[in-house]
Amino acid sequence: MTPKLLPQIKSPHDLHALTDEQLQELTHEIRDELIRVLTTRPAHFASNLGVVELTLALHLTFDFSKNKDRLIWDTGHQIYPQKLITGRYDRFHTIRTKGGLMGFPHPGESEYDLFMTGHAGCSVSTISGLKAGDELMGRADNHAVAVIGDGAFPSGIVFEALNNIGGMNQNTLVVLNDNQMSICPRTGGVGKYLDQCRMTGLYQGGKRRLNQILNNIPLIGEAARSSLEALRDGLKAWLKDGMLFEEFGFRYFGPVDGHDLPALRRILKDLKGQKGPILLHVLTNKGHGVPQAAEDPVTYHTPPVFEQVGPDRAIVALKKSGAKAYTDAISFGLHQAMQDDPKVAVLTAAMCQGNKLEKIREDFPERFFDVGICESHAVAFAGGMAKAGMVPVVDIYSTFLQRSFDQIFQEVCLQNLHVVFCMDRAGLTGPEGPTHHGVFDVPYMRLFPHMVSMAPGDEADAQPMLKFALKHNGPISLRYPKANLEKVERTAPFTPIELGKAEVIEWGEDGCFVAFGTLLSNCVAAAKKLRAEGIQMGVVNARFVKPLDKDTILKAVETLPLVVTVEEGTIEGGFGSAVLEAANAAGLDTRSVVRRGIPDKFIEHGERNELLADCGLSVDDLVELVRSSRTAEVAKCE
Amino acid sequence: MTPKLLPQIKSPHDLHALTDEQLQELTHEIRDELIRVLTTRPAHFASNLGVVELTLALHLTFDFSKNKDRLIWDTGHQIYPQKLITGRYDRFHTIRTKGGLMGFPHPGESEYDLFMTGHAGCSVSTISGLKAGDELMGRADNHAVAVIGDGAFPSGIVFEALNNIGGMNQNTLVVLNDNQMSICPRTGGVGKYLDQCRMTGLYQGGKRRLNQILNNIPLIGEAARSSLEALRDGLKAWLKDGMLFEEFGFRYFGPVDGHDLPALRRILKDLKGQKGPILLHVLTNKGHGVPQAAEDPVTYHTPPVFEQVGPDRAIVALKKSGAKAYTDAISFGLHQAMQDDPKVAVLTAAMCQGNKLEKIREDFPERFFDVGICESHAVAFAGGMAKAGMVPVVDIYSTFLQRSFDQIFQEVCLQNLHVVFCMDRAGLTGPEGPTHHGVFDVPYMRLFPHMVSMAPGDEADAQPMLKFALKHNGPISLRYPKANLEKVERTAPFTPIELGKAEVIEWGEDGCFVAFGTLLSNCVAAAKKLRAEGIQMGVVNARFVKPLDKDTILKAVETLPLVVTVEEGTIEGGFGSAVLEAANAAGLDTRSVVRRGIPDKFIEHGERNELLADCGLSVDDLVELVRSSRTAEVAKCE
Repeated sequence: MTPKLLPQIKSPHDLHALTDEQLQELTHEIRDELIRVLTTRPAHFASNLGVVELTLALHLTFDFSKNKDRLIWDTGHQIYPQKLITGRYDRFHTIRTKGGLMGFPHPGESEYDLFMTGHAGCSVSTISGLKAGDELMGRADNHAVAVIGDGAFPSGIVFEALNNIGGMNQNTLVVLNDNQMSICPRTGGVGKYLDQCRMTGLYQGGKRRLNQILNNIPLIGEAARSSLEALRDGLKAWLKDGMLFEEFGFRYFGPVDGHDLPALRRILKDLKGQKGPILLHVLTNKGHGVPQAAEDPVTYHTPPVFEQVGPDRAIVALKKSGAKAYTDAISFGLHQAMQDDPKVAVLTAAMCQGNKLEKIREDFPERFFDVGICESHAVAFAGGMAKAGMVPVVDIYSTFLQRSFDQIFQEVCLQNLHVVFCMDRAGLTGPEGPTHHGVFDVPYMRLFPHMVSMAPGDEADAQPMLKFALKHNGPISLRYPKANLEKVERTAPFTPIELGKAEVIEWGEDGCFVAFGTLLSNCVAAAKKLRAEGIQMGVVNARFVKPLDKDTILKAVETLPLVVTVEEGTIEGGFGSAVLEAANAAGLDTRSVVRRGIPDKFIEHGERNELLADCGLSVDDLVELVRSSRTAEVAKCE
Repeated sequence: MTPKLLPQIKSPHDLHALTDEQLQELTHEIRDELIRVLTTRPAHFASNLGVVELTLALHLTFDFSKNKDRLIWDTGHQIYPQKLITGRYDRFHTIRTKGGLMGFPHPGESEYDLFMTGHAGCSVSTISGLKAGDELMGRADNHAVAVIGDGAFPSGIVFEALNNIGGMNQNTLVVLNDNQMSICPRTGGVGKYLDQCRMTGLYQGGKRRLNQILNNIPLIGEAARSSLEALRDGLKAWLKDGMLFEEFGFRYFGPVDGHDLPALRRILKDLKGQKGPILLHVLTNKGHGVPQAAEDPVTYHTPPVFEQVGPDRAIVALKKSGAKAYTDAISFGLHQAMQDDPKVAVLTAAMCQGNKLEKIREDFPERFFDVGICESHAVAFAGGMAKAGMVPVVDIYSTFLQRSFDQIFQEVCLQNLHVVFCMDRAGLTGPEGPTHHGVFDVPYMRLFPHMVSMAPGDEADAQPMLKFALKHNGPISLRYPKANLEKVERTAPFTPIELGKAEVIEWGEDGCFVAFGTLLSNCVAAAKKLRAEGIQMGVVNARFVKPLDKDTILKAVETLPLVVTVEEGTIEGGFGSAVLEAANAAGLDTRSVVRRGIPDKFIEHGERNELLADCGLSVDDLVELVRSSRTAEVAKCE
């Protein structure tokens, strides 16, 4: 099924030459292309299937080429159809590979991608800023459109933006792409509200009820007044359509079927001529056009590779993987802890699947809280729970927890409350790219007084460290990567987790790797290779960055000719810097210390191991680093 | 006017013994106490005048003593009346002084102060967490109350919390303290909405309009249907009462007059018996009971000291201050820049007064944006403006900008957009205490690739540095303290601002202070004192932490026996650490480097100079540091 139309679409302007039938055919070709990618690698799937018609309708109605109309997709994982019709069809097969197309909008790839959007909810603010900027720059006729999913919608920043746009009465179009899903099923009051809009708008149930009530009002005038309360209740369902948005100063339109391309085009054309803030409620099915994806959009959000695809886009088989990840170890540990201790509660921000918390949701529903994409709320809520005496565990990806920086500060650390932070996806996450890499948490977590900051060195550390965190009293965090579990070889018995204590894996007279986190395995492998060459490099599993094990680490700095700190996080202010600070405060010469981490630039997408190698963090890089340091040392002495 | 009742109130339980008349008298005594404090020092004033009756009504209705009902004030600057009736009357005169009571809730002072709340909007989340925790801990009967101002209300986290509470149908009472003000007049669509509730609820205008329309419907049945649209419009005003909250799953009550104590008690008693999420809309006047404060609540939010108070609580004279602060220099510079360049726009988050932007608001209304307490939105909005080609300046206190950590990352730095961050109140802010000190920005701003991070050393730097930032192309920030302008003595001519270049104030063979920011003046004063003792200490005005001036600073590290880095920010990962990192990367011995900054603990309130001295950052501390370092050095060599 080689596509016929898609290769001809070099830019959205080419869409105008197609007939309605051809446009319909194009939607099939786009969905086939999406399936083709998924036969090669995991990628965002169901969300993209859901916006094929919406993408075409938007590009047919507006002109989003440079400095004309503006469009932002939120989040950007719905961008694949746009990539396919904006001159990137030829390179589409490279998506999410190193050097290939990014799986999110990328301004470096195309003028049509305005903002790299991997964190949810900011589009309404940015489109408002673009609109205000365009007007001040003399481009007042530009249309400004944000497409935001209902999963992203409850993010606080969306309401901040709606409030401000409403206050300014700005000409902006917010398209609410309502598929009743975040990655997981959505939660919260706004979701229920949208479901009501969906019901009343599509089926006119509210109007029917209203008529029944009106027919029961016997007289006009005085008598009517006594029926006002009943009338009010009856009217609410009908009036609720869009009232939420109207209270912010928006006009509400919809709901409209997001898979009916002609209907979408009609309403967008109409709205294009209107002024003021407008919200268009579009109903889509996540996974539309592929039966299994539509039935199970959670699995098909970023599914495993398709091993077999049948006719009519039926997915016959998914590739299975047996490997266990750090996420599995932590979720298993949390489940056990909840069984043992009724005070333990678990919070996630719409990442029930990513954090593998389904079993916890099922077994402990009263102590499990999925707050939706509301990370700030999650942390402040956890602060409240801790104050009441519970032990809340905030289980959020490192990169998304950034959205709670201020609540970690004020609601947790300043109050010195026992909240446990499990920072999943800490480090380089691979194909997602810079919006998803979790590289800042080490330096920022250690800023806060009272915070204890840890990272397991390997599988053996993971569950004991979680247990330690649950028994601690005060703010405490652990970080672990999006990676399979590894267990390093220990010459001595496993050392139990103790506050501020590192574990010496082995000692060596020629130097030492000090690893904070799971790059410990690379250090152990590098030390082994070096040992074979006669270089005796020790390995220390730091475990804590705050408090730092000064006894062990400063002894290494003081006595060894070479200490290499290794971390999967930014080099600015991270673990290596903490070592420098401690050594400096102790009056030590730190010329023996070499720091390795993520350099000061945004790391693009690719396989985690490819990216680690780019950052000089592969086993070979570490071996080479030691070799060359020794050569330099020898040269200096000669 | 010595108070008679107030000294007898040792806890809120004592309120129950008072008659209605005595309670009324108590409200006067509380207001007199507030005035008394203001005759000694600046403090939060108008906001506290506004909640006197509300405080009494809440404590008369609920029992907030330990582990019973729960109450959180948001923000905590409304806490003074609560302090006065919870056993702190005797110490009230110490408020906002070092070692005295804090001007915000402080759990260390009283069991009634649950959370230290200086950053707005988190109370709805924390009270929800407390309620969930209490229920799981077996205290399901506890009532949970958050009082939140309408200024804090548009913060995104509030909507995240409402959404989640509504979704859980949790028994919580949110009291919206609506005084139509943030510190500055409020902005945005929600404010307009609240005004409508105020109108329709108080004056029943909506119901009158509804009746008019109903009287114009001639027949019931078919004919009525044709009038539906008109009916719908007419009904909206009436139905709007609380609809916003009902859509989140809350029941709305009010508005109620917040200065009518009996009315407040009646409605609170009624609501105490009800289940589910409830929002009570209370109308108060900021400054109630003091004529000048009620008329000008902006000035009287935290007014200067009262020099003269007349009868009937009339403020006759305020103490005048002629000193200019860094804030003045920056706002003046911004005004000039906006005059010179139509691309420059200025954004603030409800701090028009604090940031001294009133003249800009007046002179350039179309390029000035007060987004309310919506810092996340402010930064993402700025990203959009920058993308459109404008030069947006985000003028926000250092501590509040933390709320935009994720937007600084994604919407600005990742997109490499030219947004200028003016971080006011960077460093120790004094009497406000730990929620307001801006001590984390240096380490976190330098985490982000592309970010340029600066601090003026003195008045001479301030405006040139701002100009430099406006001409730069990319994310750039400057930080300056809540302090009066100082100009250091330069032996050489002023060096213009250049990217990544420090300024050598003077060179000295015995060592060097390297100051990042306005503690430069302390360094210059310390160097002068030391020079008198024959110790030749140089002074470097670092200006940039990113990029760091390696040429100048590493030369000092390499050649001088002592280099003291000085900064008004946390010592973890800050400027001194950046110096250590650079020196280490260059292979230098860093034993000559001594770092001074804010230690790793929360610094309580007090005068800025007192707090700086506590942190070892006074002129005398710096002198002593150099003396003792030299003694140690001499001892080592002997």
